[in-house]
Amino acid sequence: MYIGVDLGGTNIAVGLVDSNGKLIKTATTPTNHLRGSEAIVDDIYELINQLVQELKTKEDLKAVGIGIPGIADPITGNVLTCVNLGWTNIPLKGMLSTKIDIPVYISNDATVAAVAELEVAQNARYKDAVMITLGTGVGGGIMINGHMHSGHHGIGSEIGHMKIGEGLYDCNCGGNGCLETFASSTAIIRYAKHLMSQSDTRSLIHDLCGDQTDNIDGAMIFEAAKADDALANQVIDRMVHYLSIGIVNIVSVIDPEVVFLGGGLSNAGLFLLDKVRAKVDQLKFFKGSDCAKIKIASFKNDAGIIGAALFAKLESEAL
Amino acid sequence: MYIGVDLGGTNIAVGLVDSNGKLIKTATTPTNHLRGSEAIVDDIYELINQLVQELKTKEDLKAVGIGIPGIADPITGNVLTCVNLGWTNIPLKGMLSTKIDIPVYISNDATVAAVAELEVAQNARYKDAVMITLGTGVGGGIMINGHMHSGHHGIGSEIGHMKIGEGLYDCNCGGNGCLETFASSTAIIRYAKHLMSQSDTRSLIHDLCGDQTDNIDGAMIFEAAKADDALANQVIDRMVHYLSIGIVNIVSVIDPEVVFLGGGLSNAGLFLLDKVRAKVDQLKFFKGSDCAKIKIASFKNDAGIIGAALFAKLESEAL
Repeated sequence: MYIGVDLGGTNIAVGLVDSNGKLIKTATTPTNHLRGSEAIVDDIYELINQLVQELKTKEDLKAVGIGIPGIADPITGNVLTCVNLGWTNIPLKGMLSTKIDIPVYISNDATVAAVAELEVAQNARYKDAVMITLGTGVGGGIMINGHMHSGHHGIGSEIGHMKIGEGLYDCNCGGNGCLETFASSTAIIRYAKHLMSQSDTRSLIHDLCGDQTDNIDGAMIFEAAKADDALANQVIDRMVHYLSIGIVNIVSVIDPEVVFLGGGLSNAGLFLLDKVRAKVDQLKFFKGSDCAKIKIASFKNDAGIIGAALFAKLESEAL
Repeated sequence: MYIGVDLGGTNIAVGLVDSNGKLIKTATTPTNHLRGSEAIVDDIYELINQLVQELKTKEDLKAVGIGIPGIADPITGNVLTCVNLGWTNIPLKGMLSTKIDIPVYISNDATVAAVAELEVAQNARYKDAVMITLGTGVGGGIMINGHMHSGHHGIGSEIGHMKIGEGLYDCNCGGNGCLETFASSTAIIRYAKHLMSQSDTRSLIHDLCGDQTDNIDGAMIFEAAKADDALANQVIDRMVHYLSIGIVNIVSVIDPEVVFLGGGLSNAGLFLLDKVRAKVDQLKFFKGSDCAKIKIASFKNDAGIIGAALFAKLESEAL
């Protein structure tokens, strides 16, 4: 049995996961990141304790995996940087290890979501695969020849920060033109507001948000687009265009067998997938050649927890 | 002993290369690609024959490698597409194999140049490395965990076709915004002509090309930039900006240990390297983290021949 922790900017979600990737039970609490790392680690420990009480013996529990929305040093388990939590050089693995006597492993949340997708949903049929997480930001996970690839300095698979054009606004990272500023929910919300502020025509998005533009979320924009709203479709078409450039760039560099689209915006399903497949086909370099399959990820909200647990399993088995 | 063939749009260059990557002897002839593939294969065979006459026994010769400026199917050895030669689905390996009784291996010219760079010059110290060839086009070779990586469908490491902005002109591939249209010699020549046509001020490039703008080449632009010519520096700064975006994007995806800059424009040496290193440092996502070293490739014009021979060596040893 493994513990998976999805440490997000909004919630801490902890789950008990069996060695086949089946989620047994979860517990969550708000992150409230402003209170600092010690209180957050205390909460992670408390949630783990809640979950393991039902285990027959503590020996059943083999390892803890934590997915963070940032960069971890794979050796030390320190969180090097995590913009959404405001963390720099936080020894997360060390802090939790003083409280718990099983191994703790830390990795990027999109990386572990890719582990979940690749280890379980696809039953490891694919050896060269990329997961693109379309959420508040855009994250990535890359598997090459069956191994998760985070690069020589541990800073790879940051697909959301590929620079692919001139952005409407600067990215959190300080750069301009990052894929994240075109294809995240943040990006489409900002672009929808931008178009709405410039237009005299009423959009269906106005109705869906009750004329409170601060309430707009990604699902509303997709709902309006599916109902043929012109402005919403303009927003989605722009997202699809740049997301497809991102996919084509990944194909031009590592040419994976499959690209999974996960995260909240992937709930748009076939409506999004059909558009992305058509645009990638139009933009790809080798028109005649086979190219990565594009699929919606199997896991929805649980990918982070299950992936973190399976990441811990893979890491502990590799010892 | 191995034969390396650098099949270019302008010349066919064939070399006898020992198993340490030392180039023993070369023979070349113009490609004249309009005459078609059969005549070109005949010439390759003739050049090989010239070179092997001095070998004591034919048994000394172990394999032939051919680098092509396009895409080959690694299994069949067919050239799938090769824009500069006008080839589509040419069975190059099969055609040469009817004439010669040692194994023939075909790969992309930038990929084999990366083999040369990584196998010999760096004595294989690096396991995760990328070679970017800055020539008429922009090619790439990627080594991941010590293995050349061309991807699941054989269409990876096409670094020159990453889309990174709005280009001045459309790429040969039909797309817009490809790295090749910003960072190749073709790109800087076109941008220099573009600026010169819009400016009333005389540039040093006018002197260097004898006021024949069709004679401008990449070396002239770098020569003028080194001599503080404002227009030439504007051209080089734009090239450096987009080349650095390309490098930062590669870092954000696969995070290699080292990036080599090869091809004709890399002859600009430290003048280019210092600018690229500074710009990558400015643009990279993780400001505080170590990132790929950027170096000028060790091989100059012979990289294609030596790389093709060493590629043949690696492939034949892998059997």
